[in-house]
Amino acid sequence: MTMQNCRWVLNRFPDGAPVPECWRRDDAAVPEPQDGEALVRAIYLSVDPYLRGRISKAANYAAGVQIGEVMHGGGVGVVEKSRSSELPEGTIVEGFGFGWQDYSLQKPDAVRVFDPSLGPLHASLSYLGMPGITAYMTMIDTIQIKQGDVAVVSAASGAVGQIAGQIARIKGASAVAVAGSDEKIAWCKELGYSDGINYKTADDLPAAVKAACPDGVDAFLDNTAGPIHDAVMLNLALGARIAVCGTMDLSNRLDEPDMGRRFLRQILTARARMQGFLIFDHMDRFDSVRREIAGWAKDGLIRHREDIMEGIESVPEAFLRLLTGKNFGKQLIRISEGPGGIG
Amino acid sequence: MTMQNCRWVLNRFPDGAPVPECWRRDDAAVPEPQDGEALVRAIYLSVDPYLRGRISKAANYAAGVQIGEVMHGGGVGVVEKSRSSELPEGTIVEGFGFGWQDYSLQKPDAVRVFDPSLGPLHASLSYLGMPGITAYMTMIDTIQIKQGDVAVVSAASGAVGQIAGQIARIKGASAVAVAGSDEKIAWCKELGYSDGINYKTADDLPAAVKAACPDGVDAFLDNTAGPIHDAVMLNLALGARIAVCGTMDLSNRLDEPDMGRRFLRQILTARARMQGFLIFDHMDRFDSVRREIAGWAKDGLIRHREDIMEGIESVPEAFLRLLTGKNFGKQLIRISEGPGGIG
Repeated sequence: MTMQNCRWVLNRFPDGAPVPECWRRDDAAVPEPQDGEALVRAIYLSVDPYLRGRISKAANYAAGVQIGEVMHGGGVGVVEKSRSSELPEGTIVEGFGFGWQDYSLQKPDAVRVFDPSLGPLHASLSYLGMPGITAYMTMIDTIQIKQGDVAVVSAASGAVGQIAGQIARIKGASAVAVAGSDEKIAWCKELGYSDGINYKTADDLPAAVKAACPDGVDAFLDNTAGPIHDAVMLNLALGARIAVCGTMDLSNRLDEPDMGRRFLRQILTARARMQGFLIFDHMDRFDSVRREIAGWAKDGLIRHREDIMEGIESVPEAFLRLLTGKNFGKQLIRISEGPGGIG
Repeated sequence: MTMQNCRWVLNRFPDGAPVPECWRRDDAAVPEPQDGEALVRAIYLSVDPYLRGRISKAANYAAGVQIGEVMHGGGVGVVEKSRSSELPEGTIVEGFGFGWQDYSLQKPDAVRVFDPSLGPLHASLSYLGMPGITAYMTMIDTIQIKQGDVAVVSAASGAVGQIAGQIARIKGASAVAVAGSDEKIAWCKELGYSDGINYKTADDLPAAVKAACPDGVDAFLDNTAGPIHDAVMLNLALGARIAVCGTMDLSNRLDEPDMGRRFLRQILTARARMQGFLIFDHMDRFDSVRREIAGWAKDGLIRHREDIMEGIESVPEAFLRLLTGKNFGKQLIRISEGPGGIG
């Protein structure tokens, strides 16, 4: 009997907002590792906003998923069979190339070994993984957050935003959370955000930013583009730094020009700096930053919330929840049990 | 008999494009310097694009000119009477606070002594002055131009653009000039620009930028905003650096939102960096950069073209020429004769 690998493949490109029918199940035999490869069983899979860009026909920073291909996505798992001396059986590995499936073949340079003493396995996909490291590098390297700064973070209760606000706090800055429900704002304040704006209920978003940041916004971690971006750009402090980290609000219209208000005068008069950020450029720092965040977490300086669904069958639904902001905390899917019950 | 000081004061705010009636003559007695002040006779006055922002009601980076006040503007002149030991009679000084008038009172911290051995007096307002130093600091500090870069400069035949292209060349980069006539493009190529785009006759500006920069734009000195900005933003190379130095295209609509295409996706996917620049933040570097450019000019590495009108009565016309791109080279107005015939 051949073991089955449950897989979700792209069924069609979305026309606007993705729907469940964009994917279909296409199970296959569990593949055999070739020389230099390891067979990895997924324990958790991650769904992340950047995956929306992978199923757009628009030109993008990474090659997209083609119809019939396994949908892209990161995960953490355990090596079950190995033909790579660098990835012996039982090793816990985390990587961006798991795909929406139970089993994947991995080469050593496509994954990172995860040390379970740093935190729970799923943390390797949240505060000790891509979102946490993105928050660290945007706030510290790109924005250069410093004591006394007033920061605004959009999608503040999301996987990146939760950590970004806490890093601002650790560095002596104050941070204002922008999120889509009062419950999310309340959670952000528990984490150490000094204030919050519910963008869904705010009457006048620029006025709300002005009220929260009367002396202007020094640092802006932009995860959304759209109206939140606009509201912050009208409230820049002199010398503001802006990291363009995500464009969630544009997700369903990546194939068309983004029309609206432009802010070159504001950038000029504030002498602001705006910089695009992609974690894939910074993989050389991944391990050292992961260890630093793990240290903060052990000292109780970083807390985190996950939103975990169960089973490979839930992956498309989990992704759609993420895209519509229905998740509360880092959206993950538990696929199988960790070795020795860890995870 | 009291000597007269010919002065242009703001008569009304422009409604759209400025017209000659925005200013009126309001001559007055030549003022007397008080303790710590010097009376300076203007030899050249400068008109610069940033002055358009000073007569807009929109919030701006510098307090605007009020109705009845002498119009702002920089100049170079000679101290005729002094009650400041730092500015003895006969000193040549250059500063931003001359105003559109024959005589002004200056304090030592508002002007810079200009050493005539560095170049002609009017150079202190062009390649050895604010425009040249702006070009240097945007290209070298903000953009960090480097060997092999492909740069695009808008308003390339203007006071800043002429120098920016030559600095790109000195640093081993190639530069594409965007300007408004074939004659201006030809001049830019004489200066060392490798290619040029006449934005007034190009059918498809994004396609023209793509043709001139097939591997994308690494460095963009944006002096205009508007359609040239848009065309370049659609052609960014990975890691592009953009200095927002001027917004000439928005000059006559500073009071209204700038609507159009936005480029957050392009900034993200190119990991581009965009930064607003104002020379007023960098006055501590003025003298050292001036000397470096003077050295290049003496070595024949920097050439420059001026467009000089005559007499205080010409100042509003010179400014309107500048705003409509009718000038060819740095727009200056010769007001009086330099001491000992220099200038």
